[in-house]
Amino acid sequence: PPPRVPAAGALRRRVLGCFLVSGWSKSTGTRRHGAGRGPRRGLAAGVVMRMLGAPLGLAVACALPGAARALSTLPSSQRGLSIHLDTIPRLLKCIDACNHLGDRREEDIVPLVIHGDTVGEVFEETASLLASSGVFKLSDGVGAGARAGSGPWLSLAPDLAGAPAEQVTEAVAALTAGLRQEGVVTGWRDELVAVSPSFGAPPVFEVERAAYPLLGVRGYGIHVNGFTRDPSAPGGLQLWVATRSKQKQTWPGLRDHIVAGQISGGLSPEETVVKEAEEEAGIPEALAREARGTGFVSYRGVDEQGRLKNDCLFCFDLELPRDFEPQPVDGEVDSFELWDLNRVLSLLEGDVEFGEPYKPNCALVVLDFLIRHGVLPPSHPGYLELVSGLRATGQR
Amino acid sequence: PPPRVPAAGALRRRVLGCFLVSGWSKSTGTRRHGAGRGPRRGLAAGVVMRMLGAPLGLAVACALPGAARALSTLPSSQRGLSIHLDTIPRLLKCIDACNHLGDRREEDIVPLVIHGDTVGEVFEETASLLASSGVFKLSDGVGAGARAGSGPWLSLAPDLAGAPAEQVTEAVAALTAGLRQEGVVTGWRDELVAVSPSFGAPPVFEVERAAYPLLGVRGYGIHVNGFTRDPSAPGGLQLWVATRSKQKQTWPGLRDHIVAGQISGGLSPEETVVKEAEEEAGIPEALAREARGTGFVSYRGVDEQGRLKNDCLFCFDLELPRDFEPQPVDGEVDSFELWDLNRVLSLLEGDVEFGEPYKPNCALVVLDFLIRHGVLPPSHPGYLELVSGLRATGQR
Repeated sequence: PPPRVPAAGALRRRVLGCFLVSGWSKSTGTRRHGAGRGPRRGLAAGVVMRMLGAPLGLAVACALPGAARALSTLPSSQRGLSIHLDTIPRLLKCIDACNHLGDRREEDIVPLVIHGDTVGEVFEETASLLASSGVFKLSDGVGAGARAGSGPWLSLAPDLAGAPAEQVTEAVAALTAGLRQEGVVTGWRDELVAVSPSFGAPPVFEVERAAYPLLGVRGYGIHVNGFTRDPSAPGGLQLWVATRSKQKQTWPGLRDHIVAGQISGGLSPEETVVKEAEEEAGIPEALAREARGTGFVSYRGVDEQGRLKNDCLFCFDLELPRDFEPQPVDGEVDSFELWDLNRVLSLLEGDVEFGEPYKPNCALVVLDFLIRHGVLPPSHPGYLELVSGLRATGQR
Repeated sequence: PPPRVPAAGALRRRVLGCFLVSGWSKSTGTRRHGAGRGPRRGLAAGVVMRMLGAPLGLAVACALPGAARALSTLPSSQRGLSIHLDTIPRLLKCIDACNHLGDRREEDIVPLVIHGDTVGEVFEETASLLASSGVFKLSDGVGAGARAGSGPWLSLAPDLAGAPAEQVTEAVAALTAGLRQEGVVTGWRDELVAVSPSFGAPPVFEVERAAYPLLGVRGYGIHVNGFTRDPSAPGGLQLWVATRSKQKQTWPGLRDHIVAGQISGGLSPEETVVKEAEEEAGIPEALAREARGTGFVSYRGVDEQGRLKNDCLFCFDLELPRDFEPQPVDGEVDSFELWDLNRVLSLLEGDVEFGEPYKPNCALVVLDFLIRHGVLPPSHPGYLELVSGLRATGQR
């Protein structure tokens, strides 16, 4: 049979079972990989663990001398944290939440191809809607010029295919204005967003910000992890958590970053951080400029309106002085609270004890923060899958 | 035409050109995205920059009031560092060095499929060699049971397809012993490495460590960035750099991490760090246990023997006290030196001023370190491509 990828759930169960059986080793005092390799004591502990289930089993294993030594020699980034063998498998649900297609299939997705580059992706019915305007053209993916194995694709209509970007922008503006009148595009911003084959490259056209999700073009945002260092806190860190206003149209009441926003208006990621920090959390420019870009997370899945979302979020870390408190400025946020990492982990794991969960894409940026700061143990099952899942789509 | 990916070089030139033209903006004092959006002064500076080339152009731009302000408000992780608009495009060569196929093509690659999971990848001639042993079987990818569009694949021979892992391990051991006698497998270690569909999962078989690259199975390693904090150093950090012994068979004299090694013998990533730290750099266990796992880098390309290498390296950060010096213990390393980040960047950019370069896969782990610590500016061209390239292959 040809290669296949096992169902994620089945794989996770298999891996978890293996880790539990492999158990603990007295010789080195930490968890061991490789089924059945540990000394008998480790194996016995593993069997007990599997019989009792992971969290309780962990407690049993902790009673053994080797395990006790293991816990006392964790790096400071993991000390005092409540992390079990089923923690990462639970966190993996955050990846799924941003990367599922709902009841749609990969085959329903039509790429938007401009000058040979894929600049967006839409579902079939949106492709038909856009093609009916005369601005775009839907090719059926068969016949002369079609690539073997490729399906239909959307491109500019022939009379626009060689036109300068400004002319395409005008044609798209007429289209989106019509869709606004028909109520298809809502929340008009009167602000243009660049559509490019890669971030920062010259745009092939520009489109009203409220309409860009309809075209399935990549969105770029910034998210800032505001944190403080405290050696006495679990893992040595505390994270500022925002609670979104209950009046917000999207995700009311959910947890958020202290600073986050879409990159638009020709601003750079760093400039967007400074602008949003002032507007959303009253963070002065001099402090906001200390935010450090630390990579990105990306995801692709259906959004709450059933459209295909393909986003890339630049991740920033901003260490805040212990005596600084962000302030709700623009009414988008009800409150800011400084949380310890056990509480953050509980929320990400789906625990309802601390109320509303994180807005789904914020969860990815927080997970990236936890991984970069050494909070999650590389030896735990699901670690590589979790780290992989944070950048589900490649970027240029 | 169907979607195509533009040649990386062409794209980089295009992006760089755009960034240079977009220039600097006095209004916010930092680099701006989006071609032609900045005020006239920024545009004029951009034209000058493009005429003179980036590094010199940067100097010109720095003479402008806005740019001067920009430099004084960089985050501390970038202060004092020599980073130009062409820095990241140069660093991208480190990604290419680990991910090129040489004169081979994707179509030459044959997957090794066990129980439906792809556990390795080899070139055609190796697939034929392995199939000729009778342990493996080469299917031609056409006819009944073949997946549309898939090529040939390698699997276990029919009499081993349902056998327990131990029996497959024995058959593979007989095969590799023969290849050792023929001189195909060299550097015999007498140590088994697990072959699994994902890290930590039960092995489908085990194979002699010296022979696993021949089978193209994923290799897992650990690399430790040993560093010190120093607010007066450029970027606030210094990195320990090892120089490999000139007597080493592989990569003699090249730069390396203070601690690195393959994960084997059933050890976890954390245990491997502790073991190698003691053996390679004389780092006591209590200190080595402070190493923090911070994610992974991965790559896939031809190695120095022309085989397909598919590796995943767990990245660790170990902050060392200012008065601690790693010591060469096992003769693999000639010296350890504490470098400032400008020197590290120069080396990664291909500057010959500081002698031998990094061993190629070490460069990826150091780049990941620089990105996580906020050394590279997200607004610079190539940033997303660089971050993407560090995890070139997904992991489970």
